[in-house]
Amino acid sequence: MSGNTFGKSFTVTTAGESHGLALVAVVDGCPPGIELSEADLQLDLDRRKPGTSRYTTQRREDDVVKILSGVFEGKTTGTPIGLLIENTDQRSKDYADIAKTFRPAHADYAYTQKYGFRDYRGGGRSSARETAMRVAAGSIAKKVLAAKGIQVRGYLSQLGPIKIEQFDWDQVEQNPFFSPDASKVAEMETYMNALRKEGNSVGAKISVVASGLFPGLGEPIFDRLDAELAHALMSINAVKGVEIGDGFACVEQKGSEHRDEMTPEGFLSNHAGGVLGGISTGQDIIAHIALKPTSSLIIPGRSIDSDGNPIEVITKGRHDPCVGIRATPIAEAMMAMVLCDHLLRHRGQNADVQCTTPVIAAEAE
Amino acid sequence: MSGNTFGKSFTVTTAGESHGLALVAVVDGCPPGIELSEADLQLDLDRRKPGTSRYTTQRREDDVVKILSGVFEGKTTGTPIGLLIENTDQRSKDYADIAKTFRPAHADYAYTQKYGFRDYRGGGRSSARETAMRVAAGSIAKKVLAAKGIQVRGYLSQLGPIKIEQFDWDQVEQNPFFSPDASKVAEMETYMNALRKEGNSVGAKISVVASGLFPGLGEPIFDRLDAELAHALMSINAVKGVEIGDGFACVEQKGSEHRDEMTPEGFLSNHAGGVLGGISTGQDIIAHIALKPTSSLIIPGRSIDSDGNPIEVITKGRHDPCVGIRATPIAEAMMAMVLCDHLLRHRGQNADVQCTTPVIAAEAE
Amino acid sequence: MSGNTFGKSFTVTTAGESHGLALVAVVDGCPPGIELSEADLQLDLDRRKPGTSRYTTQRREDDVVKILSGVFEGKTTGTPIGLLIENTDQRSKDYADIAKTFRPAHADYAYTQKYGFRDYRGGGRSSARETAMRVAAGSIAKKVLAAKGIQVRGYLSQLGPIKIEQFDWDQVEQNPFFSPDASKVAEMETYMNALRKEGNSVGAKISVVASGLFPGLGEPIFDRLDAELAHALMSINAVKGVEIGDGFACVEQKGSEHRDEMTPEGFLSNHAGGVLGGISTGQDIIAHIALKPTSSLIIPGRSIDSDGNPIEVITKGRHDPCVGIRATPIAEAMMAMVLCDHLLRHRGQNADVQCTTPVIAAEAE
Amino acid sequence: MSGNTFGKSFTVTTAGESHGLALVAVVDGCPPGIELSEADLQLDLDRRKPGTSRYTTQRREDDVVKILSGVFEGKTTGTPIGLLIENTDQRSKDYADIAKTFRPAHADYAYTQKYGFRDYRGGGRSSARETAMRVAAGSIAKKVLAAKGIQVRGYLSQLGPIKIEQFDWDQVEQNPFFSPDASKVAEMETYMNALRKEGNSVGAKISVVASGLFPGLGEPIFDRLDAELAHALMSINAVKGVEIGDGFACVEQKGSEHRDEMTPEGFLSNHAGGVLGGISTGQDIIAHIALKPTSSLIIPGRSIDSDGNPIEVITKGRHDPCVGIRATPIAEAMMAMVLCDHLLRHRGQNADVQCTTPVIAAEAE
Repeated sequence: MSGNTFGKSFTVTTAGESHGLALVAVVDGCPPGIELSEADLQLDLDRRKPGTSRYTTQRREDDVVKILSGVFEGKTTGTPIGLLIENTDQRSKDYADIAKTFRPAHADYAYTQKYGFRDYRGGGRSSARETAMRVAAGSIAKKVLAAKGIQVRGYLSQLGPIKIEQFDWDQVEQNPFFSPDASKVAEMETYMNALRKEGNSVGAKISVVASGLFPGLGEPIFDRLDAELAHALMSINAVKGVEIGDGFACVEQKGSEHRDEMTPEGFLSNHAGGVLGGISTGQDIIAHIALKPTSSLIIPGRSIDSDGNPIEVITKGRHDPCVGIRATPIAEAMMAMVLCDHLLRHRGQNADVQCTTPVIAAEAE
Repeated sequence: MSGNTFGKSFTVTTAGESHGLALVAVVDGCPPGIELSEADLQLDLDRRKPGTSRYTTQRREDDVVKILSGVFEGKTTGTPIGLLIENTDQRSKDYADIAKTFRPAHADYAYTQKYGFRDYRGGGRSSARETAMRVAAGSIAKKVLAAKGIQVRGYLSQLGPIKIEQFDWDQVEQNPFFSPDASKVAEMETYMNALRKEGNSVGAKISVVASGLFPGLGEPIFDRLDAELAHALMSINAVKGVEIGDGFACVEQKGSEHRDEMTPEGFLSNHAGGVLGGISTGQDIIAHIALKPTSSLIIPGRSIDSDGNPIEVITKGRHDPCVGIRATPIAEAMMAMVLCDHLLRHRGQNADVQCTTPVIAAEAE
Repeated sequence: MSGNTFGKSFTVTTAGESHGLALVAVVDGCPPGIELSEADLQLDLDRRKPGTSRYTTQRREDDVVKILSGVFEGKTTGTPIGLLIENTDQRSKDYADIAKTFRPAHADYAYTQKYGFRDYRGGGRSSARETAMRVAAGSIAKKVLAAKGIQVRGYLSQLGPIKIEQFDWDQVEQNPFFSPDASKVAEMETYMNALRKEGNSVGAKISVVASGLFPGLGEPIFDRLDAELAHALMSINAVKGVEIGDGFACVEQKGSEHRDEMTPEGFLSNHAGGVLGGISTGQDIIAHIALKPTSSLIIPGRSIDSDGNPIEVITKGRHDPCVGIRATPIAEAMMAMVLCDHLLRHRGQNADVQCTTPVIAAEAE
Repeated sequence: MSGNTFGKSFTVTTAGESHGLALVAVVDGCPPGIELSEADLQLDLDRRKPGTSRYTTQRREDDVVKILSGVFEGKTTGTPIGLLIENTDQRSKDYADIAKTFRPAHADYAYTQKYGFRDYRGGGRSSARETAMRVAAGSIAKKVLAAKGIQVRGYLSQLGPIKIEQFDWDQVEQNPFFSPDASKVAEMETYMNALRKEGNSVGAKISVVASGLFPGLGEPIFDRLDAELAHALMSINAVKGVEIGDGFACVEQKGSEHRDEMTPEGFLSNHAGGVLGGISTGQDIIAHIALKPTSSLIIPGRSIDSDGNPIEVITKGRHDPCVGIRATPIAEAMMAMVLCDHLLRHRGQNADVQCTTPVIAAEAE
């Protein structure tokens, strides 16, 4: 029944639920000699943190991460890195009344069917709270990638019906939506306010891009780079679709239109999203994900209780009206993990991940 | 650099390239006591086989599969099943002139960058020929699932610009496109004829559905059922997008619209595609995939050769103008593998996969 | 470079070094519905704890374990169990003078060669301190096994030159050596006192036995029960040999002598140690391990420093003169992990690990 | 129930039983650009082949291996290597009378209890015939290691009561026992003739040595080099014990005696067997294994049939009176696989496994 470890060479194992004592993670396989501090991890954690704007859940968590092991004198040692985030705001009382009900579109029913019962406080393990550890672990992956000149960044490409039209990386961190289009922010604010008033929620589309990658990363046929990206991204709560490059637009494309022609100066387009045959081409890796609307609504919905009786469900408590808003750093973290894992599996050219050089003068016989 | 094994409890390992001696697979973890013959596997292999209609590649392969081990007196023994498909039609000469060129949108460039050189005959390992073994292995998974009353079926939902409008499972096997809409077949034929004349190719959308599943399958958080389905389906050649349930349509949905309400009689809708929190709900599992247009075109394209010189590429040889046409049995195979793998990892209710009962009268002390 | 996860279906991932903030572990795959408290884990931790007798290291650690997640209302939920043991006695100053020296027979040299530098405080990750988490995780495995009537117990079978001659399980917990032979305890005490005075150390032999097992556990050919036991037991610090059943005595045995004959009442002997063809026979599983003498000695030894200069090493600090003494609960933990992992991989008869029965009245459509 | 894949980065998956159509293997993760031919593999296969001397089973198998994929123009391509060995001498009739009986000390009983029935022809999957594929795959591992200057060799160190006393690597291949002591060969022949006449069998001890290794290989804590060697070696049929370096002799050693002191010129001894803290030290890796006597005897033994009735068993057919005799190349193969797998997982210094250099002039943008 295990399923809480991701990766092969760079592995991330997490534990912890919404209202337990703490979230914990073990990041294993990080190369030695990389500078790492808690402040490095806090940057992305703060980007994901709830309660920072009125458009996300009002649960307030400091999300302060502690590095318990694997770092010595400011550098990774090559041994596993233990991470801890304590849960400080565990208001369990809000959830007592849902202990025996199943919220429509929530994991309640599936979890109870699988395990026989469930930790009903705040969604337990199925809560998006779990993603805080993904973000912390992803920051370590980003540091490893940065040492090779690889950068992973994400942005909101659509919020419900509102699509971005202009693109400026510099805008992404300037608004609470991670929108690269500053001209849409006001519209998004208005939309979200109306949505909150309505007690409803909406979906979103997030895009993630890795740049600076060399060609040759990925292990066909089942461990293709794109397949593992799809795995990683689809494992994020609420994600229902993953595209690489042009994605579903390919269905109506002709071959002459889709193919990325090459010249001695490089590719002329990037419909493929940086992956061919499951292997990186050296172009930007581009992925898009669709997130469904949150299931926790104030609008009543039909459901059943654990005895099978029909009930009407209204979800109180603190929830995100659009989980997509906080999903950008999570999606970045998952892409970073996949790339870092593949980087450490990779042999041959560009395989050297910087490692402190051994200082031993005398070789063994 | 390994990456040719899929699954954890039901594992499929394949080897073999387009123009080698043979394709080979080891299917490990199949429960004992399941009736299995080569004829069982041949059914799906024949559905995938090239050269059966004028709309697919004219390469002719019998794709006759041999079971080398793991079956005794007509039943699986619980030991690994070895499979062999010999390559009979290996016309390598067609490919000699592309040995030093990179075809745009083909895996040539990525493979060469990764491995330093490549088996250029017919795409080598990156050829869709490899999928024959997936189909054979998937048929074994289907047999295991069938013993639990679970059925996996697929169909073409869109061919280039042509979308299906009517739906009849019985029609799917009645036309060369796996279209459930008989009324669209003539239009598809006309379209494909024009495409072939043009020397071009087009994308497609395939849908796969599993029915008869119980609730509770899937291992959160990283081994979610939907995440592993995304992995499996994205690992198919030419796939650029994966959706579970409503997929990208979720982006514009509101929560009140998306959520599947429940009554004592069951769910009232299936926007989720049968998975919540990474665990099956008991409803049909529904996935859609986008396949890009084939990269092998007669229309000239700009590219480079292995010395970096600009060249113009025209791909001769035998190719599929729409790889999506033959992808239906492949997508079914991958979904069947994922479900079978999860079924064998699953504990608790519904965990019993039929196994011949031991016949030993005397227990050990 | 990852390597800190053990198991496939019941996985144990650990992190933490001798003088870091804390040890941490994630136990993933534990079935739901099993009663579990911190007190359950503390029992075995206290058996392993240093400083409890004058024959072990005088480092004093309370080794208090916290369960951070995966348990709700006293029962496991099926989600991953996070464990934390804080390091309270971190006297790093003892180690400052060995930062640049390699102690003979210690992992110092190998770690530095691998990672380029090392956390030299108390052996860092190579310290036996890490085994505290194995013991905690092993206790969870023991609880799962107990629910199936399977018990894992260990004992000291040889301390340096002193072999046990009488056998009584009840004696094992009555002396600081885990000796089942009460008549040898005084001799062991005298021997250990002399050894400590000498500033030397000595090896030991530990035996572990699982009883109550059903026949049929184990997955040939590479995941044989005995092969994974060998892996698990050899992974314990200082272990240099593993035997199953008669072990190395088999070399001189004849087939007529070694084979365990069977009658309708059961086996007549157990030379095989409960495993044939990699699968359990239903008899007791018996394994023996050899532990080398500790490398940290007061007796000077020749070595080199990190510049390659010859030096003389004397190891001060707090050390075990016989690591074997505290190895009994560690060996039990590793055997319990292997058996629990195989139990959860096992299909067919006896596969049912008790899981709380789902309580949902209405089935999904 | 899967368990037929070994390794993480260099993986070997095998299938096939004693009397099926063929043995098959997939070797995945072999670096590209290594020269490989069927003749390379045949060398070791011929060393393991039955029927070459009167001291091994009289079953005659040519054991001709075919490379089905993964090699192009004489070099590995980096894609998976498919291997096939057809079973030519399948005299199943010898086994018909044991279909319903359990031979003492044979895997019959355990397999039947696990799977509910068994392929009784020649032991099915539990037959040592399966090891032919290990030897073929091991030869590929040896080629990868050889490219790094690492050599793996084995020898018989004890045949029943006869221990070798003199040591000469050059003698090992000069006699049918792989004995490095020519002076013992006549004694071994006499012993084996008497054993055969008696209808009995005997155990053996085999040693394997890797030389030319650099320090730093191995991934603590669970994937230690010694732990994975123990796993690999214990997975060989009939092996009941594994030692690294001094092994069980450590139990009576003192620390001052066991420790390998170091000087600027290197280590002064190798009691550790080349591994400290689970990581290679650069010294020779030394392992010893104990093989039990074959269970197939002409001397009658008490057993039961599948109805639980008491029976007397005499095993006819063709068997090895000492399985240890042919185990030397198998043990070498397993050690080679472990080292090759660790070599390909290894990062940092010495991580470069020769890979054909990519020849692409123009980099992607």
